[in-house]
Amino acid sequence: MPIKVYFAAGAERWPAYREPLRAALSELGIAADLSDSAPDPAAVDYIVYAPGGPVTDFSPYTGCKAVLSLWAGVERIVSNPTLTQPLTRMVDQGLTEGMVEYVTGHVLRHHLGIDAHIHGQDGIWRQASLLPPLARERPVAMLGLGALGQACAAALAALNFPVLGWSRSPKSIPGIDCHSGDTGLAYVLSRAEIAVLLLPLTADTRDLMTAGRLALMPEGAAIINPGRGPLIDDAALLAALDAGQIGHATLDVFREEPLPPGHPFWAHPKITVTPHIAAETRPTTAARVVAENIRRGEAGEPLLHRVDRSLGY
Amino acid sequence: MPIKVYFAAGAERWPAYREPLRAALSELGIAADLSDSAPDPAAVDYIVYAPGGPVTDFSPYTGCKAVLSLWAGVERIVSNPTLTQPLTRMVDQGLTEGMVEYVTGHVLRHHLGIDAHIHGQDGIWRQASLLPPLARERPVAMLGLGALGQACAAALAALNFPVLGWSRSPKSIPGIDCHSGDTGLAYVLSRAEIAVLLLPLTADTRDLMTAGRLALMPEGAAIINPGRGPLIDDAALLAALDAGQIGHATLDVFREEPLPPGHPFWAHPKITVTPHIAAETRPTTAARVVAENIRRGEAGEPLLHRVDRSLGY
Repeated sequence: MPIKVYFAAGAERWPAYREPLRAALSELGIAADLSDSAPDPAAVDYIVYAPGGPVTDFSPYTGCKAVLSLWAGVERIVSNPTLTQPLTRMVDQGLTEGMVEYVTGHVLRHHLGIDAHIHGQDGIWRQASLLPPLARERPVAMLGLGALGQACAAALAALNFPVLGWSRSPKSIPGIDCHSGDTGLAYVLSRAEIAVLLLPLTADTRDLMTAGRLALMPEGAAIINPGRGPLIDDAALLAALDAGQIGHATLDVFREEPLPPGHPFWAHPKITVTPHIAAETRPTTAARVVAENIRRGEAGEPLLHRVDRSLGY
Repeated sequence: MPIKVYFAAGAERWPAYREPLRAALSELGIAADLSDSAPDPAAVDYIVYAPGGPVTDFSPYTGCKAVLSLWAGVERIVSNPTLTQPLTRMVDQGLTEGMVEYVTGHVLRHHLGIDAHIHGQDGIWRQASLLPPLARERPVAMLGLGALGQACAAALAALNFPVLGWSRSPKSIPGIDCHSGDTGLAYVLSRAEIAVLLLPLTADTRDLMTAGRLALMPEGAAIINPGRGPLIDDAALLAALDAGQIGHATLDVFREEPLPPGHPFWAHPKITVTPHIAAETRPTTAARVVAENIRRGEAGEPLLHRVDRSLGY
């Protein structure tokens, strides 16, 4: 009997994912009945999930062996009390590459002072004042050292940036100056001229960037947040920007998305809003991860990227 | 008798170079008389040179064993008929690093469409239209595969950009799709969505980017020129930008520098002018290269980075 795979990740994604998923399952020799509807919830073997999709109550899916998220961040599902099935996060090579490109591009943008050139096309030749230091003289903080944070840290270190890493639990990564805990966070922030936020959103990381922590950074430091909106206390960030303590913030994620047109972030001269594009899951590569987890589920092997619900990621 | 080293690279550079040069010479055990003046030209053993400095006639420097340029580009001195002494170019690790950072930063800026975000802070959430492809889907041309071009090509390839390289003479570089000659140039330009110009300025490369060659590129392609201004036919570039054939040009070098305030490049919405900052020689690292060449000159060893005047670089 074919394995019933229910694509419950939003109607708008179905056209982009249908063929890549069929191809990836077929490549692994899995006979699957893949559909974007499930008239009989009890017959579903696997749910492909994204927030905003049709499933919010997982209790009718009594035969479901795993819920496979297309998103890396699972904070909108992990605490769902109806979810008793195993849950996996997406770790997509395409998503990781897109994130590395976004982070490296915006770190270099701030490092090189590219905005000053874009805004300063006024005929004045400012050679001396616009020469940046070398990357090796510009410490960068990477807050979060999961798959995405480590990939970004490695790319920045390859460009000679001294990278200070911070994570909840102590880590040791070659070429990265790793720290953990509250004392470690204070150490990292006090040295970094650019901070990149790539932490999962948990009770511990919510509002991590308080006024007090922003004040630890060198004056004029830049913040880049492609992680999760609530990692930053928005009011504290606005105050730090207005005071000149923080020089610029480039934000890709927000407490409310889409960011409302009247939100003060849009008009703030020291904030660049990007519309949650730092890392989109890419259908071709993500479909292979989903298919591999279905193969593992059927073979009784451990699932890739399984979420630990006590940690929240 | 101490070796007479004449710093003829401009009074404005002397304060930044005096101590690094003294230290680098002393480190190599060279007893030198280092000065920014030379009342007796015949007594000078080595000239440290940059364009715009006090020496334009090299014939009185009858005892001079080498002219050591602080600049990588030597087109303003190589054809000087009074120059009979050996000439060396600067290959400075700091300069190379700065160039890699500039090129990588601006390639990523164009790749990610960062300008659209900087200019588009209007409250409209354009998620779908602003998602860039992955770097692996964005071919980049590197015109010029000398020390700087190779370093930039390697950094871009490490970020997954497919790099098409072009040089005068055929080269083979791992990870770079290398081409040469007129046919090779047409091949490279017809495939590259972003082209970086890092060629030396010679009779062969002057006006390399003609209207015809700009027309070979995919519509909307970007040009980044941190090499030399006259590599591009300025009028052809302006016409290609106005026609939409070229999407944007980021220019760091110009036929006349500083670029005059009334030059049409400054006001053009599709041109970003940067004031010749892509790669500045850094005194500490450059002084070590100068001192090493003086050591080699005194020991009768071959000089580093000696210019072949028949090639012009």
